[in-house]
Amino acid sequence: MKAITLAEYGGPEQMTWAEVSDPEPGPGEVLLDVVASAVNRADLLQVQGNYPVPPGASDILGLECSGRIAALGDGVTGWNVGDEVCALLAGGGYAQKVVVPAVQLLPIPDGVSIEDAGGLPEVACTVRSNVFMEGRLAAGETFLIQGGSSGIGTHAIQVAKAFGARVAATAGTPDRLQFCRDLGADIAIDYHDDVAEELKKATDGRGADVILDNMGAKGLANNLSALARDGRLMIIGMQGGVKAELNIGALLAKRGHISAMGLRGRPVTGPNSKAEIVEQVREQVWPLFGSGSVRPVVHERFSMADAADAHRRLADGGVVGKLLLLNPDA
Amino acid sequence: MKAITLAEYGGPEQMTWAEVSDPEPGPGEVLLDVVASAVNRADLLQVQGNYPVPPGASDILGLECSGRIAALGDGVTGWNVGDEVCALLAGGGYAQKVVVPAVQLLPIPDGVSIEDAGGLPEVACTVRSNVFMEGRLAAGETFLIQGGSSGIGTHAIQVAKAFGARVAATAGTPDRLQFCRDLGADIAIDYHDDVAEELKKATDGRGADVILDNMGAKGLANNLSALARDGRLMIIGMQGGVKAELNIGALLAKRGHISAMGLRGRPVTGPNSKAEIVEQVREQVWPLFGSGSVRPVVHERFSMADAADAHRRLADGGVVGKLLLLNPDA
Repeated sequence: MKAITLAEYGGPEQMTWAEVSDPEPGPGEVLLDVVASAVNRADLLQVQGNYPVPPGASDILGLECSGRIAALGDGVTGWNVGDEVCALLAGGGYAQKVVVPAVQLLPIPDGVSIEDAGGLPEVACTVRSNVFMEGRLAAGETFLIQGGSSGIGTHAIQVAKAFGARVAATAGTPDRLQFCRDLGADIAIDYHDDVAEELKKATDGRGADVILDNMGAKGLANNLSALARDGRLMIIGMQGGVKAELNIGALLAKRGHISAMGLRGRPVTGPNSKAEIVEQVREQVWPLFGSGSVRPVVHERFSMADAADAHRRLADGGVVGKLLLLNPDA
Repeated sequence: MKAITLAEYGGPEQMTWAEVSDPEPGPGEVLLDVVASAVNRADLLQVQGNYPVPPGASDILGLECSGRIAALGDGVTGWNVGDEVCALLAGGGYAQKVVVPAVQLLPIPDGVSIEDAGGLPEVACTVRSNVFMEGRLAAGETFLIQGGSSGIGTHAIQVAKAFGARVAATAGTPDRLQFCRDLGADIAIDYHDDVAEELKKATDGRGADVILDNMGAKGLANNLSALARDGRLMIIGMQGGVKAELNIGALLAKRGHISAMGLRGRPVTGPNSKAEIVEQVREQVWPLFGSGSVRPVVHERFSMADAADAHRRLADGGVVGKLLLLNPDA
């Protein structure tokens, strides 16, 4: 098969569409013929050498995909060869074939094309695990998504809205703020402004019950300021740096919670596993596509052979939703 | 009635046993004849002027007590005049009478004297809300209690052990470390050592699933180092300062959680309320006293009129368990 390979760590110029050996499914795994994968910020970090591959995972880029089941490993039940699926991956998506534990498979949601489904597993599992499972967002609560026009953001706005939350989203330009509103955001805040201050104005001083943040250090103080009593700050990225001063007194005064969680290093099964999250996504989130309350947001499609261009596109900023990578031979 | 009054903010010398007007129970409240109260670190901070009284709460010291019901306010059911009870208070315990919402009452646990029960509500509600409700400590997990010989610590060791956790406790002297072991701690660590390093040695490198910490800033980095994957750091005090550098990358690598929560500012009823916590304590914790797996740990008893001496005693350090304040006329 062909896959994106890295000559060495560096920039997108290191990424080459080249022949590699096919993977083989072990017990409990399936082999997929990939139709589409999608670009995540972790892929950019991995190219730079700043995102170590978890032990046992493929060293090929790509944390999600869609495709068709080509073979079943020993002991796999509930799936058949030929099934159209999408999957949360620990790696290996930028390729024509990929092996994945069967518990990380999802059906294609009703009303979604197999191509577009390739960009759903990461956003759906990230939002479900952070905002709902750990963050326990409840109907009627206020949810602040930092970066509302990102892949994560465009999905989070729709899902939080569908579950009855009041949604606030930040973005950096008037058109992206409008896009957040069009997706259902009740409050849209320019992130060049004082976000905490603007959110408090819009919520009678209360702030956000749950915040989903991808900036890390740079956003910490303002996020704590924006947090409501008993609020939960969920950090999923560190685009704004790694280390920041934490005012524990301010956190204590709010009975606040800070969590920082990723998907990739989680165990496949058991407590806090990918299997747990995937199951909840299937049961709680997938029906929202069929009913029309949530839709995929795709910014641009690339041939997987041109994945380097897609990486440059994401790094340039301004992407609204996901960048898909299509297997040119699928 | 008599109560401890403060001439002005300062040290224990400001505390005087003096005549004040009796409180009166409003709807949903009861009036208690106090038998015993107990000293909490928050009381010391309040004397210094460093712990603002929540709106609507008594400005008299004292966050817990035991006693007998002297009168019922409108609408109170399930309790009778004369019942022996203990109670979580928002203030007012250093007095001969106190008014408290009925939902904050607990019966005296089986096998516990009414005096000793006066020192139980704060520790029981703090440990239940932090370690179990928010921290979700499960049987088989490792629990680290910082300050194992404190009032909170001596209770936390016993309860965590009773629920099947592996318990690690820190203390500063060999006799206090031994006391923690005698209460059930599996691992006892001198807090002058590198606690994270010692804990990892004792847990095959895994660390603690839940940590209960009262140091705040000073302990943050070491606590994050001691935290296991998916671990929960619960901060309930800031004896080691308010501001510290947080390494979000280290937190993310562990999928870690930090919560900082108190009891006093919580709503009486509804989500995250005192009523919720008190109900869980009654159902989940109180039976452990009757079965003998948990017992009160009282370091010393003072007449309530001598509360200043009790404050000096706690500030001096080395107190193992609770300091009780007994109503001299009860």
